[in-house]
Amino acid sequence: MSNKKAIVYVRLKEGVLDPQGMTIQRAILNMGYDMVSSVRSGRFFELEVTAGDGRVESKVDEICEKLLANPVIEEYRVEFEG
Amino acid sequence: MSNKKAIVYVRLKEGVLDPQGMTIQRAILNMGYDMVSSVRSGRFFELEVTAGDGRVESKVDEICEKLLANPVIEEYRVEFEG
Repeated sequence: MSNKKAIVYVRLKEGVLDPQGMTIQRAILNMGYDMVSSVRSGRFFELEVTAGDGRVESKVDEICEKLLANPVIEEYRVEFEG
Repeated sequence: MSNKKAIVYVRLKEGVLDPQGMTIQRAILNMGYDMVSSVRSGRFFELEVTAGDGRVESKVDEICEKLLANPVIEEYRVEFEG
């Protein structure tokens, strides 16, 4: 039994419109910064997991598919630490 | 002039309550996965920036302080690619 951290990054797939990112990009422009040409937004989740058996990776994948990401329009990747 | 990507990660400071993370943790538990003891949530933003002069890093810092993060309760870090 050991503890590790799983960091899940969720973002919209390429080609899916990102209204939040577009709004932020426009706000940055309105603030007077003209060097930002595009903004894409995403979310991440830091999960403290107990690595009791060898199936932690596949369980985290299941949690991503079922809860953290919408596989229709989003993609995710997982990084493990510790 | 070159283009690079700045990725800004925004998260709540340690000690600041994260209701979204707590809700997700409980939902994971209710789904039958008992190996996740804690969830912290955060956001990230991928900025395409034109590196016209040497002050891109400080400008991105200003954008983070003013727009992307709430410095009172959130902390951020920036990674540059390209």
